[in-house]
Amino acid sequence: MSDIDFLSALSARSSSKMVLLVLDGLGGLPRPDTGLTELETARTPNLDALARESICGLIHAIAPGITPGSGPAHMALFGYDPVRFEVGRGVLSALGVGIDLGPDDLAARVNFCTVEGGVITDRRAGRISTEENMRLCVKLAHIHVEGAEEIIRPEKEHRAALVFKGSGLSELITDTDPQHTGLAPLRCEALPGGGEAAERTAAMVNVYLEKVADLLADEHPANMIVTRGFAKLPDIPRMSDLYSIRAGAIATYPMYRAVAKLVGMELVDTGMSFADQLEALEGAWEEYDYFFIHYKYTDSRGEDGDFDAKVACIEEVDALMPRLVALNPDVLAVTGDHSTPALLAGHSWHPSPLLLRSRWERRDGAEVFGESACARGGLGIFQATSLMPLLLANAQRLNKFGA
Amino acid sequence: MSDIDFLSALSARSSSKMVLLVLDGLGGLPRPDTGLTELETARTPNLDALARESICGLIHAIAPGITPGSGPAHMALFGYDPVRFEVGRGVLSALGVGIDLGPDDLAARVNFCTVEGGVITDRRAGRISTEENMRLCVKLAHIHVEGAEEIIRPEKEHRAALVFKGSGLSELITDTDPQHTGLAPLRCEALPGGGEAAERTAAMVNVYLEKVADLLADEHPANMIVTRGFAKLPDIPRMSDLYSIRAGAIATYPMYRAVAKLVGMELVDTGMSFADQLEALEGAWEEYDYFFIHYKYTDSRGEDGDFDAKVACIEEVDALMPRLVALNPDVLAVTGDHSTPALLAGHSWHPSPLLLRSRWERRDGAEVFGESACARGGLGIFQATSLMPLLLANAQRLNKFGA
Repeated sequence: MSDIDFLSALSARSSSKMVLLVLDGLGGLPRPDTGLTELETARTPNLDALARESICGLIHAIAPGITPGSGPAHMALFGYDPVRFEVGRGVLSALGVGIDLGPDDLAARVNFCTVEGGVITDRRAGRISTEENMRLCVKLAHIHVEGAEEIIRPEKEHRAALVFKGSGLSELITDTDPQHTGLAPLRCEALPGGGEAAERTAAMVNVYLEKVADLLADEHPANMIVTRGFAKLPDIPRMSDLYSIRAGAIATYPMYRAVAKLVGMELVDTGMSFADQLEALEGAWEEYDYFFIHYKYTDSRGEDGDFDAKVACIEEVDALMPRLVALNPDVLAVTGDHSTPALLAGHSWHPSPLLLRSRWERRDGAEVFGESACARGGLGIFQATSLMPLLLANAQRLNKFGA
Repeated sequence: MSDIDFLSALSARSSSKMVLLVLDGLGGLPRPDTGLTELETARTPNLDALARESICGLIHAIAPGITPGSGPAHMALFGYDPVRFEVGRGVLSALGVGIDLGPDDLAARVNFCTVEGGVITDRRAGRISTEENMRLCVKLAHIHVEGAEEIIRPEKEHRAALVFKGSGLSELITDTDPQHTGLAPLRCEALPGGGEAAERTAAMVNVYLEKVADLLADEHPANMIVTRGFAKLPDIPRMSDLYSIRAGAIATYPMYRAVAKLVGMELVDTGMSFADQLEALEGAWEEYDYFFIHYKYTDSRGEDGDFDAKVACIEEVDALMPRLVALNPDVLAVTGDHSTPALLAGHSWHPSPLLLRSRWERRDGAEVFGESACARGGLGIFQATSLMPLLLANAQRLNKFGA
């Protein structure tokens, strides 16, 4: 029995309310001159007060040393083993740009690239602007290939998502991205075990790519695309079924809304600011047992390498925390999906700080919410997949195991 | 997908350098009168200074409560699950005495014993001296059995290693050591599933043992041998292949050189002292990305039950640490493979203290390098197999998992 089945078998009903607030990429690294991380630098009187009423810890999304993408990191926060329930690259791209995927649809990550003399000379087509990308995607939207409907939609710069909507498609096909310049784009091929469905799908992809080459022939620098990470929606049990909870997601970015939907949450309408998200939370308070609130900008400013701007984002959230606390959830957790230290300007392997407030937890004497205090926290350092059972336990929604 | 395959799939290239310094059996237990362990008793200004620039923790080689041998403990430090990649007793014995094993060779651990009236009366032959053992092994070296070349080489006291070099040998054969006195040495038998190769190998072992009985008939007290742990070299993927690193080992004892070679490290020539090892490190600095330096004497003095002598060994290493630090590795870890408390005069289950210095780790306020400080360290208490991913992450040699 997997962990999630084990947990599901113990689940019980209750009227208690749980809130999981994820500040994306919250964890950081200390600035050498102060020895303080972004979270420790920020003035956070409200989060600090909460830490004093909470039990704290650090969580690994995957394992020590492993830097997670946002997809697997959120799967772990929702209680799903992120390696077992791996969501393919193409699916994350497609969901990220807001394409609604059905169970038969096949999605891929696309790069615009530059081909000269038959070989790729730039795998990113000079990092064309997102506007140029949009113009090219509109042009490619005219392509139709027998056997499926194609949707191509821009991500940022040279990246796009491509979806084949049809039936009988197979994800067991190869990338066309050779991963190195000086090589021609590869033909899409069926993978071993893919059978006739994979042969047919690969042939369809190749026809599509030939049409792309024709349509982009006169463009520069983006005169071709390469595709990778073909994948279909994975089969993931719904949180509502697993734990008998009504789960609502208050997220502003397509990617996080999509992952929430993948695990069976309902999407709550919300504006883009954190104040808007809190308003959405207040409005939907009676309708759900579990709320996932996703705040994106801590990660964005970390990715920019802008320490001070990330600090400002944390302070923005802190200032509004009293509105959330006023709802008095039975269980409130504040954490990150992974760390995004401004010093690394990207995701990192460092565990995420966590505070968990519930009347049914011990206290650990943490005076502030920060990585150092959490490292000494009463929950210790543990796997993010254990957060969901902790929330459910504190919500008194789990029965005893054994007699 | 196993942990090691998972990690290998994420590995990326970099020019950074990693150093793992293993002080064998470093961890200890506090002397009741002072409450301080060997490491905490030792004057270690250089390791303490390093701890202040590091993140600390404690590592379990296998699991809480499990006392590891040196073989599995080192496998764990190198990132290999020591239970999955178990190295047979015979192989460890043979490698430990410096016998070069090929993939077809079969190795066993040998005990000299005393047989009277057909039954074993002393399974250790009165713990004969190592010199006596050597004399007997020279005598047994004359034995030749059809089908393989035999090598027998003394370990300490009554223990020796025996290797059959040949082809078509099977490790699926039984021990001849009955494990109790009052019983006759057992005949070697094929194990179920061993097939014809095991039948042939067991017959060959029995012929060998009959010749041993003849040759030792007039000896006393060691007039026979018993064998156990027949094993061949396990199939272990090379670190260089797994992580695209050039890995060099600077170890003085055959057993550790052998385990390093088993995982695909190259052996760097070195003299026997720690100063010699540092000279070897300096000389090979440009040639490798990852260095394993093994210092043996902390374990030896712990095994002797000599608290003060173990303290002196730690101080000897500390005094020379500035030479290692001067090379400024991007990632430096200092730890033990297992604990060897002088109070227990043997290996123990207690987790090993660890310091990890890298510009990409958080700090935890550790003021000294010692078991108590490490128990409160920012890395917490974790599995030794996670050390390799942590080293690789800090060396920026691992890609993100998922998008």
